[in-house]
Amino acid sequence: MTETHEIVVEKVKESKIGNIDFDNLTFGKTFTDHMLECTWRNGNWENPVIKPYGPIMMEPSAKVFHYGQAIFEGMKAFRDEDDNVFLFRPEDNWKRFNESAKRLAMPEVPEEIFMYGLKKLVDLDREWVRYGDGLSLYLRPFMIASENGVAAAPSTEYKFMVVMSPAFAYYRGDVRVIIASQFSRAADGGIGYAKAAGNYAASFYPNNLALEEGYQQIIWTDAASHEYLEEAGTMNIFVRIGDKLLTAPNNDRILNGVTRRSVIQLAQDKGIEVEVRKISVAEVKEAAESGELKEIFGTGTAAVIVPIKGFKHEEYTHELPVLNDSYASDIKESIKDIHYNRVEDKHGWRVKV
Amino acid sequence: MTETHEIVVEKVKESKIGNIDFDNLTFGKTFTDHMLECTWRNGNWENPVIKPYGPIMMEPSAKVFHYGQAIFEGMKAFRDEDDNVFLFRPEDNWKRFNESAKRLAMPEVPEEIFMYGLKKLVDLDREWVRYGDGLSLYLRPFMIASENGVAAAPSTEYKFMVVMSPAFAYYRGDVRVIIASQFSRAADGGIGYAKAAGNYAASFYPNNLALEEGYQQIIWTDAASHEYLEEAGTMNIFVRIGDKLLTAPNNDRILNGVTRRSVIQLAQDKGIEVEVRKISVAEVKEAAESGELKEIFGTGTAAVIVPIKGFKHEEYTHELPVLNDSYASDIKESIKDIHYNRVEDKHGWRVKV
Repeated sequence: MTETHEIVVEKVKESKIGNIDFDNLTFGKTFTDHMLECTWRNGNWENPVIKPYGPIMMEPSAKVFHYGQAIFEGMKAFRDEDDNVFLFRPEDNWKRFNESAKRLAMPEVPEEIFMYGLKKLVDLDREWVRYGDGLSLYLRPFMIASENGVAAAPSTEYKFMVVMSPAFAYYRGDVRVIIASQFSRAADGGIGYAKAAGNYAASFYPNNLALEEGYQQIIWTDAASHEYLEEAGTMNIFVRIGDKLLTAPNNDRILNGVTRRSVIQLAQDKGIEVEVRKISVAEVKEAAESGELKEIFGTGTAAVIVPIKGFKHEEYTHELPVLNDSYASDIKESIKDIHYNRVEDKHGWRVKV
Repeated sequence: MTETHEIVVEKVKESKIGNIDFDNLTFGKTFTDHMLECTWRNGNWENPVIKPYGPIMMEPSAKVFHYGQAIFEGMKAFRDEDDNVFLFRPEDNWKRFNESAKRLAMPEVPEEIFMYGLKKLVDLDREWVRYGDGLSLYLRPFMIASENGVAAAPSTEYKFMVVMSPAFAYYRGDVRVIIASQFSRAADGGIGYAKAAGNYAASFYPNNLALEEGYQQIIWTDAASHEYLEEAGTMNIFVRIGDKLLTAPNNDRILNGVTRRSVIQLAQDKGIEVEVRKISVAEVKEAAESGELKEIFGTGTAAVIVPIKGFKHEEYTHELPVLNDSYASDIKESIKDIHYNRVEDKHGWRVKV
């Protein structure tokens, strides 16, 4: 990784870290002292700037407001007992960011800007990365279309930015899900696999309807038949039937999750049989009835691993059993051990800042 | 329509209209002196403000940048020979705006804010509405999620805004299209019928690929089979086979176009047989081969009516004939006559400002 883009750093006069109550954080509401901003203009990335976190000026005609060219990544930095700070598989996020960029007709961000910029920013605000179970610094790289003008065409200007938010756990309380039978998140040939802003907005209304029924999330199914499980919008989904762990294959509707890939690898390391294949709703309901359905859990950067307590599909409801030998708990502990540098990093996932 | 929300008006010190070259306008790049802004906060719409057009301050964590809650409408104001200014079916846009809002889990905008605000804004900048064939003032009401925070949930704050741009014709030059056989715009159960920002971002990459092949637009097909015509992303689509005019029915993937409805009505007024039904790609290609395919055209507020000169579907290409009795030309003239108050307004579509 070479550094041909010089990063300009403008530091805050005084850190606001003293005012932060790290024991009472609401996810994604508190931001660190600094952010990174880099402008794409005239076909080139300008030099990135690290500067105090604060508002940006946008014209009301900026294309992001009208045509939704906006993508992001979710990543985390962790601190170990010896005050080392690590990122987790950051190159995977960088690569996926650029896959999203391509699908949204946005410019790719060079490795040196994304990775070097991210490390420099995390390093500058490293006091914000706290040590402790469940504690992390959530990193939000994102890109938005910043050209002014309301003609429906790709923007000619973009802003790549990184903001960072100290985080505790994402979900608190039980999570039950509705398996979708009417609404859809993504189409074949669409942008479901991209971490595109528009995918999230599309899910909020159906998710509100689920919340009204007492369910916190939706497991999306394929739009064509609603017969196969896809993902949960903010998480990939795993189903344990008997001793086998199942998850849907990647396609152009499902996000290629970094945590998903890590969970598959760690499960296999533990000798668990993992099948990456289509999972039908009918199969899940049959396994529920026969008692073979042991666990359903979601995986994602923000939430890491979230056990699902129960689900509803049309009129059918089912509560998952409470297990002593839960794969979700076991694998989550293993991931956290890697996050916090408590075990050897066999797969080379940690990147020191 | 009552006015319970007082509109605060802050006028520009000096209009910039003298600097505008109305004979050389690029669509959507020039904005009038004023804009409207109205904030939704704590469950209520605050009083709208009309103020000089200019940049707004947004936190980089504002939800619109991350989760794509953004919707808009496209409308136009027209001036007649006697310097009266008219909107065209504005209530239809207001209603559709609120249907989009609902699907994107955003608050609906009351009629008095949308309609009264729009009229007051157009009235203030009425000198920007020019008389002349193809001239209009393009109005862009839109709403964006403005709460700060990167948790994936609906925003608790929104901005409703209206910006306005003097416009000449939208498309110049010939338009040829690719009929989609791989990429999709919307899924059943998704947000295709909403005027949501994310729908447009999803279409740019496939449209860029079409442009590279010399085609300006895509006619989307259903994501499940790619066998039926849907819409063109910025336009609804009409096909004339023999003397019959066909257009796809509304569903949750296709925008319920105001111009589309107007074209159906005006065609029927002229005694043209209109069928609103599924149109298969195979049917269009067969009609092309038999010589029965007379016209394909797109309809939308920005473009009004755009004749399609030719199409490609997989390896098949076809050029449309040049007609003396084109429905597209005939109906376009009739719509323009209504826009510019040159004929009686039989259907009550004009609303005087």
